[in-house]
Amino acid sequence: MGVVVNIGSGPDNISPDSEPTLNDLINLTKADLSDVNKIILQSMNSPVTLIPQLAGHLIAAGGKRIRPMLTLTSARLCGYNGERHKGLAASVEFIHTATLLHDDVVDESSLRRGLASANAVWGNQASVLVGDFLFSRAFELMVGDGSLDVLGVLSRASSIIAEGEVLQLTTTNNTETGETQYLEVIKSKTAQLFSAACRIGALVANRPKVEEDALETFGMNLGITFQLIDDMLDYSAHQRDLGKAVGDDFKEGKITLPVILSFRRGNDEERVFWRRTLENLNQEDGDLEHGIELMNKHNALEDTVERARHYGSIAKDAIGIFEDGPEKKALLESIDFCIRRAF
Amino acid sequence: MGVVVNIGSGPDNISPDSEPTLNDLINLTKADLSDVNKIILQSMNSPVTLIPQLAGHLIAAGGKRIRPMLTLTSARLCGYNGERHKGLAASVEFIHTATLLHDDVVDESSLRRGLASANAVWGNQASVLVGDFLFSRAFELMVGDGSLDVLGVLSRASSIIAEGEVLQLTTTNNTETGETQYLEVIKSKTAQLFSAACRIGALVANRPKVEEDALETFGMNLGITFQLIDDMLDYSAHQRDLGKAVGDDFKEGKITLPVILSFRRGNDEERVFWRRTLENLNQEDGDLEHGIELMNKHNALEDTVERARHYGSIAKDAIGIFEDGPEKKALLESIDFCIRRAF
Repeated sequence: MGVVVNIGSGPDNISPDSEPTLNDLINLTKADLSDVNKIILQSMNSPVTLIPQLAGHLIAAGGKRIRPMLTLTSARLCGYNGERHKGLAASVEFIHTATLLHDDVVDESSLRRGLASANAVWGNQASVLVGDFLFSRAFELMVGDGSLDVLGVLSRASSIIAEGEVLQLTTTNNTETGETQYLEVIKSKTAQLFSAACRIGALVANRPKVEEDALETFGMNLGITFQLIDDMLDYSAHQRDLGKAVGDDFKEGKITLPVILSFRRGNDEERVFWRRTLENLNQEDGDLEHGIELMNKHNALEDTVERARHYGSIAKDAIGIFEDGPEKKALLESIDFCIRRAF
Repeated sequence: MGVVVNIGSGPDNISPDSEPTLNDLINLTKADLSDVNKIILQSMNSPVTLIPQLAGHLIAAGGKRIRPMLTLTSARLCGYNGERHKGLAASVEFIHTATLLHDDVVDESSLRRGLASANAVWGNQASVLVGDFLFSRAFELMVGDGSLDVLGVLSRASSIIAEGEVLQLTTTNNTETGETQYLEVIKSKTAQLFSAACRIGALVANRPKVEEDALETFGMNLGITFQLIDDMLDYSAHQRDLGKAVGDDFKEGKITLPVILSFRRGNDEERVFWRRTLENLNQEDGDLEHGIELMNKHNALEDTVERARHYGSIAKDAIGIFEDGPEKKALLESIDFCIRRAF
């Protein structure tokens, strides 16, 4: 698995000695996030001990809390000085955690963030039900907050996420899937929650609709950027750093953009290869490596990063309407960080 | 499987020629329920065709729509003349349907209401995700209604249902489970939604808290009655009429009241039998029949019905504060109908 992706052009606006990080975002939200974590721990409590055990396993495994950080930072960007954004950030993280639990059941994953996944430890049954519990708790937190607008944004987002996941089921193992349909899937299953997380930041701050829309567009395009890079990384040597098994998408026959580009740019013989490995899941030793060779031959990984840059640019422009300041800078850098992960 | 339960005493207040039915409830809610069904069909629609297909399979399979009927009738009992109860009744049914979809995954059931279960037809993945979709849509419907009180009741109910399901996981195959813990499970996983369905009827009608509480108590105890009889029927010849495979609970090692009573009233040899069959799931031909013999020996099925009568009486008394009328009569009769199913 020594395959390293050859990326032609470097990332935008980045000099080698100032690599983009999430440090600004992390530092800006540190104090608030510590309160969010307390709310998370309180709210996942239950006399049914399996619930905090299982939820704690996933939450202890970490994850960057990127979605709650987006809610917190969006609210601050909008000048919000209250406390409501913390509970809402927790409810966003609960919705995310619930979908992770259900995803792992759907994907039959055995690893999550480098640890054994909850379903591998406690079984699918518990993962389905604890996911339901966290999802319900998310809504309880929102009801406690009391804003029907926020409830509207997050209940709508939840429907769309579920729709996206079902749509993804129907594209899996289908090499006919096109880029448009793929985009539809990643918008729904990933970018929608990023988008909602940002929008509710503007909502609690009671800002004009134009600012809500700007943050929603930012979140949506950040989410697309993030998922494109994630899907590209599944075929790159950097994947190991993410704690996920390399080539997971290939093994499952998931149709992501690197595959779509390689399939469309390939010849008949190559398409036979993709159909055998991803549609029929008839895979042999060396197939993953051969797939990556084909991707490199067709610049599919580089161009996936290029596509990501496009959406990243849209995200950056969307928040151009806000005045410069530390929150805006941190959000802009999060885009560069996403893209930088590709290297 | 020719075992017929011998019930000592007849049901309360029932003469042979006027058996209790749900007819009054059905007739009273017929017009409203037809609107509820339209809302259900509209709201389960999605461009992702697998969603209406799968949801439609379950919803077409029927079910009595008992929970929406409870919301509709409770609202009318409280003198409500508006339209809001219809959307809320639909959202209650969506929450119920979502839990059914997830239950079937958890139980690995192959039958639901006499038809192939959704997971058997479309796979567990789709059932998990479409369940999530319906659940989210339920909250969208509530947000559309606009009452934070209703959202509070149903989000709390959803958390408790999930908690109850997880608790049930930990009691399955555990013959040490006592009646108190069993009651906790059925209150959470079944009775909670009956209770919430009734309470929101009073909520839309803007009635005093005492009426909300009365309807909540009614729903809770109706739900307990319903589940006790359901669990008893799983060991009775009447089960076939319900479209469920006979002896399902036994096969899965679920610990329900008939088992709990038989285990506690039994001798050492009998307890060895229960442990072998339900804890170790080491089952042979004739074991189910032997289990039913033991239940009859210890009056476990009759006494499960007796326990159900107790909760049914509490339910009836709870709505004593409402004036007599067709809605009250129909709700009272639904209790007798539940118990009558045992015969």
